[in-house]
Amino acid sequence: MEAKFEFIPSGSATSPEGFSAGATCAGIKEKDRLDLGILSSEAPCVAAGLFTTNRIKAAPVVLCQQRLRSGRASTVVVNSGCANACIGEQGLADATEVAGLAAEVADVSPEDVLVASTGVIGQPLPMECLRAGMRQITLSRDGGHQLARAMMTTDTVPKEAAVKSDESGFIIGGVAKGVGMIHPDLATLLCFLTTDAKVNLDFLKFALRQAADVSFNMVSIDGDTSTNDTVLLMANGLAGNEPISPGSRQADVFQQALNQLCIHLAKSIARDGEGATKLIEVTVNGAPDVAAARSAARTVVSSPLVKAAIYGNDPNWGRILAAVGRSGVEVVESKVDLYLGNICLVRAGCPISFDWEEAVKLLDRSEVFIIMNLNLGSAAATAWGCDLSEEYVTINSRYTT
Amino acid sequence: MEAKFEFIPSGSATSPEGFSAGATCAGIKEKDRLDLGILSSEAPCVAAGLFTTNRIKAAPVVLCQQRLRSGRASTVVVNSGCANACIGEQGLADATEVAGLAAEVADVSPEDVLVASTGVIGQPLPMECLRAGMRQITLSRDGGHQLARAMMTTDTVPKEAAVKSDESGFIIGGVAKGVGMIHPDLATLLCFLTTDAKVNLDFLKFALRQAADVSFNMVSIDGDTSTNDTVLLMANGLAGNEPISPGSRQADVFQQALNQLCIHLAKSIARDGEGATKLIEVTVNGAPDVAAARSAARTVVSSPLVKAAIYGNDPNWGRILAAVGRSGVEVVESKVDLYLGNICLVRAGCPISFDWEEAVKLLDRSEVFIIMNLNLGSAAATAWGCDLSEEYVTINSRYTT
Repeated sequence: MEAKFEFIPSGSATSPEGFSAGATCAGIKEKDRLDLGILSSEAPCVAAGLFTTNRIKAAPVVLCQQRLRSGRASTVVVNSGCANACIGEQGLADATEVAGLAAEVADVSPEDVLVASTGVIGQPLPMECLRAGMRQITLSRDGGHQLARAMMTTDTVPKEAAVKSDESGFIIGGVAKGVGMIHPDLATLLCFLTTDAKVNLDFLKFALRQAADVSFNMVSIDGDTSTNDTVLLMANGLAGNEPISPGSRQADVFQQALNQLCIHLAKSIARDGEGATKLIEVTVNGAPDVAAARSAARTVVSSPLVKAAIYGNDPNWGRILAAVGRSGVEVVESKVDLYLGNICLVRAGCPISFDWEEAVKLLDRSEVFIIMNLNLGSAAATAWGCDLSEEYVTINSRYTT
Repeated sequence: MEAKFEFIPSGSATSPEGFSAGATCAGIKEKDRLDLGILSSEAPCVAAGLFTTNRIKAAPVVLCQQRLRSGRASTVVVNSGCANACIGEQGLADATEVAGLAAEVADVSPEDVLVASTGVIGQPLPMECLRAGMRQITLSRDGGHQLARAMMTTDTVPKEAAVKSDESGFIIGGVAKGVGMIHPDLATLLCFLTTDAKVNLDFLKFALRQAADVSFNMVSIDGDTSTNDTVLLMANGLAGNEPISPGSRQADVFQQALNQLCIHLAKSIARDGEGATKLIEVTVNGAPDVAAARSAARTVVSSPLVKAAIYGNDPNWGRILAAVGRSGVEVVESKVDLYLGNICLVRAGCPISFDWEEAVKLLDRSEVFIIMNLNLGSAAATAWGCDLSEEYVTINSRYTT
C-alpha cells in the first residue's frame, strides 16, 4: 500500500491538535520519580476503551468501563506505583475522587475524566500524596513526554509516537507503558491514544478493536494478564476533516495509521520486556484461518523454552515445532516449513542441514525473525515478544513491593 | 480413609513380582552416563498408555499408540539423549528396530515391546550406539534403580517408588523422569508403572486415566508440552489376586494406591523442576466444579510471576489473585479467601493485615502451600509446581544441543 501517513519526529500523545499534558512527583513511588500525570483535550472527545479480560479488575478499570458507556471523555489521569486493585470498596471511591481532582486541574466535568493506575496490587492509593500532587500539575502542549515518564514502572524507556495523515492532515498520537503486556502488579499495559481527527463513535470503537488485535493482543512477555490493562482512544475532531465513518474516504487511512501506531507501541513494549535483550517477531503463514494463525504465532512467541533458546543464541528449532504443536491449532508435521530469518531450518517437516554459525549470528541480533508456513491455508499473523533472561527472574523475585 | 496400602522402602518399577530391568551406557549422551534401558515382565501383561496431546508426536509415541491397540505389552525400551522426534519417516523405522533389538534381549515377541525416547528434537537416533548398547543390557530383579538413572536428562535425582496393598498383597511400582512435565526437548515426562495385580484391561485404562488426572496432569513446570510425553501401565497378574474390575472388592484400593504412587512421582518431578529451589502446592477449594478447580489451581501454579515471587520469598499475593482471575474460571473477587500455609492473606476479597516476617518464613521452606477458597461451590483440586529461578533460564539457554 502506498503510504498515506508518516511518523512524526518526537511524536507524543500531545502531538494532535488540542491535547495537553503534565506530570509530577507525587511521592507514590520513591522520591523524585514522576508518578502522576494528566492528559487532556481542550475540546470534548468521543472516546473508546479496551480493558483487561481478567475476572479481577482494578477499580480504575471498573470506573472507566462505567464512564465510557457515554462514549465521551476528554481527560485521563494516571498514576504509577499503586494499582488500586484488590482492596475492596475503597478502590472505587478513591478512583472517583482522583478523577474529581484531575477534573479541577483540567477544568472539565468530573464525568469526563478516565482513570488508570499501575503498580502493586492490594494496597490502597496514598490519597494524601495524590491530593497534594495533583495541584502541582500544569498542562502544556508539549507535556506528552513528561506524561510518558510518569507512567513508567520497570519500563526502561518511555514509549510514545505519533503519525500524521498526508492528505487530511489529522494526527494520531499515543503513549504506552508495559514491559510485559501483562504483568499483574508491576507491568500492566496502559496505552492512551489521542487524535484530532473527527471520527464517528461507532467507527472509533471498531477501529480501536481492529488495531489492538494486530498489535497489543499480539504481544506476549510472560502470559500473565494484569488486573489493570487499559487502552483508550480519544478523538476531539479539531483537525476539521470530514467525519470518518465506516466506508468513508479516510476510514482506511485512519485504520492503517492507527494500526501502525499501535504496532509501533506494541513492539516498543515487547522490546522493553523485563530482562529482555532482544525483540522476537514470529510470523505464521499458511494457516487455515486467522484465529489459528494468531494462536500459533502467540504460542511460539510465548514459549519459555523458545525464549530461553533465543536468549542463548541456540538454533534449537525443535522447541519452535513443539510449541506450535501444542498451540491447539491444526498442524500437519509433514507440511511445516520453518525459517530463522532467511535460513530454512525445516522443510515439509524434515530438518534441513543449515549453516549453524550463520544461524547463531542471526540469533545474536537485537531483532530475531521466525517465519513458519503451515501450508494448510492462506491466513497469516504476526506476534511479538522478547527473550527470557536470568534478569527477568531477578526483577520479578527481588522487586520490593 | 484408612490406609489399605503402604509405600515400600526403596521401591522401584521392578518391585512387583515378575518384573526385571537393566541399563547401559550406549553413548547416546556423553560418555559413561546410563542412557539406554529395558523394563520387562516375565509374564504377559495387559497394558494401557497415555500420551502427549501435542500435534507433533515423536515416533516412539506413534509406535506405542499403534501397539497398545492390542491392550497388551510386556516390555518397554527407553533411551535418553535423543527424542527421535521431527526427523521424518526414519523415526518410525528406527523406533521399530529398537523395539526388535529389545525383544531379543527380553526374549519376547517384538510386537510386545513399547518404546520411549527423551532428549533433543530433530536428530536421528544414533542407531549404531543403540545396536551395540542393547547387547550389553542384562535384566535383573533389582534393575529398576539402574533403569531410573538411564532415563534422566537434566533430572538431578532418579524418581521411583512402589506401594503394596495390605490385604491382597499386590504391588504397584513406578519410575518417572521429567523436570518439567513438559519441556519439549530435554525434559519430557516419561513414566512406566508396573504391577503384579491381576487387572481387567478396561479397568486398567480407566484407573490410569483417573490417576493421571490427579497427578501428572496437575504438574506444571513451564507450560510447554513435550512431543514425547508417555505414561505406561503394565499388569502381569502374578500376585494371584481375584481379577480387579470396576466395582470389584479391590478396585478402590487399587485406584487409591495408584493415585498415591502417581502423586508421589508427580511431586518428585515438580520438586526437581529445572532450576527449582522449592515445591509449590496450590489447592483450590469452593469451586463450582472440578474442571474449574483444576484449571484455577494449574493457572496459579504455572504463573511465572507467582513462581518468581515465591522464589524470592516475597508474599506478593496480588499475583496469585491476578493469576486466578485470568484462569478463565468463574471468580467473584468479593468472595475469595487466600491462605499461605496457615496465614490468611485475603478474606472475602479484602487484604488482611498479616505477620510479614512469618509469611516470609513460610515461603523460605522447601515446600510452600497456597490454599484458596473461591466460595462458589464445593469442588476442589490440587496442583504442584516449582519456583522460577535464574537457574531455569541458564539451563535452557546454555544447554548445548
